[in-house]
Amino acid sequence: MTGAESLLNAAVAAGLDTCFANPGTTEIPLVQAIENTPGMRAVLCLFEGVVTGAADGYARMAGKPALTLLHLGPGFANGIAYLHDAKRARSAVINLIGEHATWHLPADPPLNSDIESLANPVSHWVRRNQSAETLAADMAEAMEAASTFPGRIATLILPNDYLLADATSVAQFRAPVPPPKVSEEAVKTAASLLLEHRPAALFLGGFGLRKRGLKAAARVAAVTGCKLLCETTPTHLERGAGTPPLLRLPYFPEWGMELLAPFKSVVLAGARNPVTFFGYPNTRSHFIAPEQLSETLATPEEDITSALEALADYLGAPANAGEFGSLARPSLPTGKLTPETYAATVAAIQPEDAIIMEEGISTTRSYFQASGGAPSHSYLSQPGGAIGLGMPCATGAAIAAPDRPVITLQSDGAGMYTLQALWTQAREGLNITTLIGSNRRYHILEVELRRAGIEQISDKARTMIDLQRPEIDWVSLAKGMGVPGVRVETAEALAQELTIALQEPGPHLIEVRL
Amino acid sequence: MTGAESLLNAAVAAGLDTCFANPGTTEIPLVQAIENTPGMRAVLCLFEGVVTGAADGYARMAGKPALTLLHLGPGFANGIAYLHDAKRARSAVINLIGEHATWHLPADPPLNSDIESLANPVSHWVRRNQSAETLAADMAEAMEAASTFPGRIATLILPNDYLLADATSVAQFRAPVPPPKVSEEAVKTAASLLLEHRPAALFLGGFGLRKRGLKAAARVAAVTGCKLLCETTPTHLERGAGTPPLLRLPYFPEWGMELLAPFKSVVLAGARNPVTFFGYPNTRSHFIAPEQLSETLATPEEDITSALEALADYLGAPANAGEFGSLARPSLPTGKLTPETYAATVAAIQPEDAIIMEEGISTTRSYFQASGGAPSHSYLSQPGGAIGLGMPCATGAAIAAPDRPVITLQSDGAGMYTLQALWTQAREGLNITTLIGSNRRYHILEVELRRAGIEQISDKARTMIDLQRPEIDWVSLAKGMGVPGVRVETAEALAQELTIALQEPGPHLIEVRL
Repeated sequence: MTGAESLLNAAVAAGLDTCFANPGTTEIPLVQAIENTPGMRAVLCLFEGVVTGAADGYARMAGKPALTLLHLGPGFANGIAYLHDAKRARSAVINLIGEHATWHLPADPPLNSDIESLANPVSHWVRRNQSAETLAADMAEAMEAASTFPGRIATLILPNDYLLADATSVAQFRAPVPPPKVSEEAVKTAASLLLEHRPAALFLGGFGLRKRGLKAAARVAAVTGCKLLCETTPTHLERGAGTPPLLRLPYFPEWGMELLAPFKSVVLAGARNPVTFFGYPNTRSHFIAPEQLSETLATPEEDITSALEALADYLGAPANAGEFGSLARPSLPTGKLTPETYAATVAAIQPEDAIIMEEGISTTRSYFQASGGAPSHSYLSQPGGAIGLGMPCATGAAIAAPDRPVITLQSDGAGMYTLQALWTQAREGLNITTLIGSNRRYHILEVELRRAGIEQISDKARTMIDLQRPEIDWVSLAKGMGVPGVRVETAEALAQELTIALQEPGPHLIEVRL
Repeated sequence: MTGAESLLNAAVAAGLDTCFANPGTTEIPLVQAIENTPGMRAVLCLFEGVVTGAADGYARMAGKPALTLLHLGPGFANGIAYLHDAKRARSAVINLIGEHATWHLPADPPLNSDIESLANPVSHWVRRNQSAETLAADMAEAMEAASTFPGRIATLILPNDYLLADATSVAQFRAPVPPPKVSEEAVKTAASLLLEHRPAALFLGGFGLRKRGLKAAARVAAVTGCKLLCETTPTHLERGAGTPPLLRLPYFPEWGMELLAPFKSVVLAGARNPVTFFGYPNTRSHFIAPEQLSETLATPEEDITSALEALADYLGAPANAGEFGSLARPSLPTGKLTPETYAATVAAIQPEDAIIMEEGISTTRSYFQASGGAPSHSYLSQPGGAIGLGMPCATGAAIAAPDRPVITLQSDGAGMYTLQALWTQAREGLNITTLIGSNRRYHILEVELRRAGIEQISDKARTMIDLQRPEIDWVSLAKGMGVPGVRVETAEALAQELTIALQEPGPHLIEVRL
């Protein structure tokens, strides 16, 4: 058995079965080991940003980490942006980075770089392996680190000579420690805020956005009259018919602060104290005002589900109390495609149990509201804000949940960062429908220029904002990677093509011209 | 004047005029400043790897840095791989990274990350700006750092609030210090090696591969009988008819060591002591054997041109001594496309004064040898080894040298990393012909598996190596980004389409099916 094989055996023993991979020469022993390890599947991605974004999406749906296989510092670097997103999403990822042979490193070969310095900002745990015999134990420890609730990023740096050498070690993997329960005091404090400082809001995030937590939150709302709010960019929100109505915190500070302003108190439940994406002059960093009362029922790292249930029980809420939305799809719109008719069409058609990955930026500004009454679905978004996550994350989600239809709501500008994901979708025959909201510009920058007081955008500034000259032809791009695509310009055409795409197996792309 | 404007004024005063950009919200003040700064041009790239790769290519041809404009840590991270390449190429690049407003950072907004930790491995110089009034001075210092011969990577982290604030400062830019001259002792030692320990080799790299240095090297060879060798992956080699014949060090260790074995001594001239790209079992790291005599005439950071001229003078070489190749193109091949007929066709047709960017990996293994007698041209390759540099680097080279035809020899696997470069080529109307050598696999990994003793590659390992199921259709990908493309399957068709592409203005792509 090689060191690489002992490592993969330890991974399989810990319950891992999927490796998103973009190998190079230093990872040849890992390629051989995957070949020789039953139960380990490799999914080739043609760019490392697809590897790490897919690992994030996989973890969100599978509830366990995927492995990534990356080539030295530069290959890892190409995946950093979506590890940033995965870290902010609190997804579990285990990175395997091939490194030069230890005896070769002192010669500073061309691809040598300081991998730890690159890895630390996007990893909770980084280990440089020190011998073939410790590869299995390192893998087990990486799994323990990554499995820390709700999920962490563990990065293993693997010298080529140790991967190649013989090894006999077998690793024991300890089951992850369950997340800490919150104190009775935290439950009582939350209850007193919600009862005594009204109007009050329960601000939900993280695992508080899964069905069990939401059911308890609805009970809390039923007996206290509090409003249920949720994070702007949830990692994984279970929503639609049968779930309680939630108000989502708007992206722009002034809108979010306006939404929160009426509340005397806010209880944070699985969410951080919300922070604006960017700092704007004369605006504060935190949405919640200093004069508003705010307490934490549970942090994102604590057992928010049992905390919400304990709170509901403490408040004496009946087991089935609460308001739950019914199926209420928008009617199918007609005519010109706008962000509003686009959103309504998707919400009118999306099937039961769909996984929706949203990176539509301004093109899908109406989707969240339009789809509240759609059939039960998983809604994934982008807590980390690193652009380009959409198609890779959807790819990983589809690998983790092959029986569920996946719809990616993708903006054209962000989509260009990681379009290589389409190839992996075709290779693996994934049931993903990618909707490219094509507005042919970095519209969010136009908005930001206007917010900064610039009304007339000059031709020179336009060169940095417009995606015209030439226009991007997404149907051709999809065809180039083996994904059938069509372009639509009306709501009727979108409805027709979306219906077809969802019925036919395999990936599809629809360019939605706005 | 805003801080951002004072910074760009300082850049223009230092002679900079080009900024490869992918801006986000934190860079809005820089977008506005570019708009308001005459003499500064922005080139939009739809992915940050294109930004940094283009900056590398620009620096190689312009002999001065480009600016890059990048969005926070994650945007910078997407550009790290090609900054790694630029650093190894010793190209001059100045990165401008927008950072959150200083007062917003303590709230740890979603896109916050440790930018310094990400930047240090690929930068010689990193500065976090501390006030609006020091932005101009920081820019001037970045320029001085980047201009240190032959070129360095300088990274400026620019808080949004300082960019926005008023500033009055104007910066003085000191002209860069010329590279240090080598000692007389170094010249004498080199001469004695070449004269007394024969057969001898003069191993050229860096600026020793430009015409003036090569002319002096040819004089040295004429009087000492030494062989002229060059680095495996030159940053910028001026070659073709009228330049002295060079033997290039082969990529694989066994071939390179075989080439070097006959030499009793090796003089390093603008090159590091060459190191193999990867460490293989039972192979040493350095090509030059411990028993071979080796001395450094000039490091890549010293004035290699004057060192070579001093050596030629010291040896009493006549001013016009030396062997210079004549125009000797291969004849146009016919029939099936192979790496050999592909290379010969390009070498038979490439125009006078072309810039050739080679990232063909195994698809262009025959090109270097085939093109030695082609008309005078610049040959750029990849000293850093981070895959995907080809099309971005060619893009930057074409921006720097708009009157020269650019040909990119690109492999299909590496090309998929940064295909977004094609869009910028179309946007800017660049005269670039991209040849995609399509072998539909990571062929180098197949070779490495064979070198590792694996003769039969299983279906499972193949999933990580084959780029089939689906095949990549490069003509459609190019069309999707506004670049006209064709597919060729014979040498005759390649000759015809390459001739057309070179005659028509603007970018073209030819998928060369091998």
